[in-house]
Amino acid sequence: MPFAPTGLLTLTTDFGTSDPFVGIMKGRILGRLPGAHIVDLTHAIPPGRADLGGFWLAQAWTEFPPGTVHLAVVDPGVGTERKVVLAECHGQLLLAPDNGLLPEALRAGRTPAWRIMRPDLPARLGLGPLSRTFHGRDLFAPLAGLLAAGELEPAGFGPAGLPQDPNPLPRPLSSPGRIRGRVVLADHFGNLITNIAAPLLHGFRQPRVEAGGQSLPLLGTYAEAAPGAPLALVNAFGLVEIAVRGGNAAVGLGLGAGQSVDIRDGIAA
Amino acid sequence: MPFAPTGLLTLTTDFGTSDPFVGIMKGRILGRLPGAHIVDLTHAIPPGRADLGGFWLAQAWTEFPPGTVHLAVVDPGVGTERKVVLAECHGQLLLAPDNGLLPEALRAGRTPAWRIMRPDLPARLGLGPLSRTFHGRDLFAPLAGLLAAGELEPAGFGPAGLPQDPNPLPRPLSSPGRIRGRVVLADHFGNLITNIAAPLLHGFRQPRVEAGGQSLPLLGTYAEAAPGAPLALVNAFGLVEIAVRGGNAAVGLGLGAGQSVDIRDGIAA
Amino acid sequence: MPFAPTGLLTLTTDFGTSDPFVGIMKGRILGRLPGAHIVDLTHAIPPGRADLGGFWLAQAWTEFPPGTVHLAVVDPGVGTERKVVLAECHGQLLLAPDNGLLPEALRAGRTPAWRIMRPDLPARLGLGPLSRTFHGRDLFAPLAGLLAAGELEPAGFGPAGLPQDPNPLPRPLSSPGRIRGRVVLADHFGNLITNIAAPLLHGFRQPRVEAGGQSLPLLGTYAEAAPGAPLALVNAFGLVEIAVRGGNAAVGLGLGAGQSVDIRDGIAA
Repeated sequence: MPFAPTGLLTLTTDFGTSDPFVGIMKGRILGRLPGAHIVDLTHAIPPGRADLGGFWLAQAWTEFPPGTVHLAVVDPGVGTERKVVLAECHGQLLLAPDNGLLPEALRAGRTPAWRIMRPDLPARLGLGPLSRTFHGRDLFAPLAGLLAAGELEPAGFGPAGLPQDPNPLPRPLSSPGRIRGRVVLADHFGNLITNIAAPLLHGFRQPRVEAGGQSLPLLGTYAEAAPGAPLALVNAFGLVEIAVRGGNAAVGLGLGAGQSVDIRDGIAA
Repeated sequence: MPFAPTGLLTLTTDFGTSDPFVGIMKGRILGRLPGAHIVDLTHAIPPGRADLGGFWLAQAWTEFPPGTVHLAVVDPGVGTERKVVLAECHGQLLLAPDNGLLPEALRAGRTPAWRIMRPDLPARLGLGPLSRTFHGRDLFAPLAGLLAAGELEPAGFGPAGLPQDPNPLPRPLSSPGRIRGRVVLADHFGNLITNIAAPLLHGFRQPRVEAGGQSLPLLGTYAEAAPGAPLALVNAFGLVEIAVRGGNAAVGLGLGAGQSVDIRDGIAA
Repeated sequence: MPFAPTGLLTLTTDFGTSDPFVGIMKGRILGRLPGAHIVDLTHAIPPGRADLGGFWLAQAWTEFPPGTVHLAVVDPGVGTERKVVLAECHGQLLLAPDNGLLPEALRAGRTPAWRIMRPDLPARLGLGPLSRTFHGRDLFAPLAGLLAAGELEPAGFGPAGLPQDPNPLPRPLSSPGRIRGRVVLADHFGNLITNIAAPLLHGFRQPRVEAGGQSLPLLGTYAEAAPGAPLALVNAFGLVEIAVRGGNAAVGLGLGAGQSVDIRDGIAA
């Protein structure tokens, strides 16, 4: 399905919402496409963590209809010669600095068409001199606006080319009856989301999830645990998650990002 | 006034904004209604506190024009057999899990038409298998989108029926010359909002508000107190509030949610 | 360029996002202009700090196209007789309480047309009795909606008149080879943004930025410093900023708002 713009865009950044950085980007987008419909995914990616930006974008972008442009700006290399990449996939576009964010967002069996921004594109589009600290405003917002307006075609963005992938999230290790993964992050509820995807559990008959001295059963939903009790389940993103029913697992269990998580099978299949 | 959709929706959740959960819901809504206009009321309801979700929704939904769909997802029972309720009131729709949220939002003399979701509705609408942890995405967002698009009529949602009300906010006790209520929450400014509505003060001539050892006059506006001094007033929601002029009452007075608040009359009417 | 409304509005407040205050304002705006396109700039202005509201609005409003209405509500004087001001500049409108916010937002060489709200305007527009604590809802949101809808002309808002400016941000002191300014705020990344604008540096050949015992070179971009090292640069708003590459300068250097900052020239021009 080729990309056909609908004017819908999403934003994923590490800019926070306490300063008007995101609003400023929206001003620049709306200057290019007055009818743009802009949805915030999150602006709370930890500063510079392109891998986590990619992780959350992976869970979100597939929920949007064809014709959407997803702009992600987690850009610790701003002001350097880092490249800019565009991915076209399932009729949607994803735009970000070339720092691993988009490969992480697209790695689950996707085969996007990748393009690398031609170096003279900003000048050709009349974007003017770019600041050296805020390319979200000076470069990415206008590019996204033009793409969402259909005034810039993916083919005009630059030649096909593969993105760099300097810092992907680590993958779990799997052997018969055992998986070793880790906690990627604690979400707003304190649920500890791991990098262990459900298909890895195929063949396990009595999986137990072990982390930080806890050994937890893998249940179907939060309510199968007693109130206040810890549990593990496969969450709505298809990932193993450690939670506390009605509570905050990160606080209650004292666990966080990077914690190793083992899944063992009492009865190996 | 019957509901006639305008494409305007609001969202009230306990999902926070650090993860893309709200953005994902918006993707699903926009998938059903590309022109949807979605307004965030708040996503900072304390986790699982349906009563506080209802409290804030009560202050907000009446500010919207007829044709609006208000979706509230505070859903500690996700994954269980809890029901889903729809209320029609003043030409607007309100949709939420059946956990007391909507009765709290609608209790101020409203007579909404209530409906309980028919159990086979998700399957009839082709929503596919629901996850057991994120019905905001899999169930509520598409339902709200369809209602706001006019593609699902309230009558098709399910039969009339009364919601459960397991956990409403407590009401104040009132006797001549005395009211005993409590602080519902501290707002962003640290203002302590109580459950004492202004009409209860009828007949009081010199009301004094007592809480945590403070005895405060009931003033008309913040500026009637000296800078840095505590005061009480009837706020813009018609509720008694304890504040500190130019300061944060929750911090400055060391008071918070659940604190009992007494109002006495020096000269009983 | 005269103002011609496009239905685009922005909001800048100190209301936070934990309560639905902003959503309530949007409901009132949408009641006046159902197709309004509303962009949040920030709702995290520190409570009552009109000067900082003006500072951020100054960086943001110029990024929006002509026809935009910018509403800023930082209103510690709510409930008093404080005035309301409207500025028209470059085909855009800016509306706020008369407390220094708009003069700060517009001071950089702008020559806006100022108007002071006629006292009987709310009654003439049928806005009804105003609460004494939430004019964002009762007064400012409907006014902004009417202005953005073209139903209220700037000329109908009130007579020309100059705003008060009780609390502008202090300006730096400049003498040959030396500038003394201060940190205005730390942004989301912990970057310390000063009130020293780049043109003041004209003629400096080897500027060094001194603050809190640090003496830092003025570099071109973050990446010119070693990872973890402090630096100074001219940021994307044209202001001198103290940062730590890949880190948080406010935390790492222990500096914050109000900190004095000196710039000296090793080789005076």
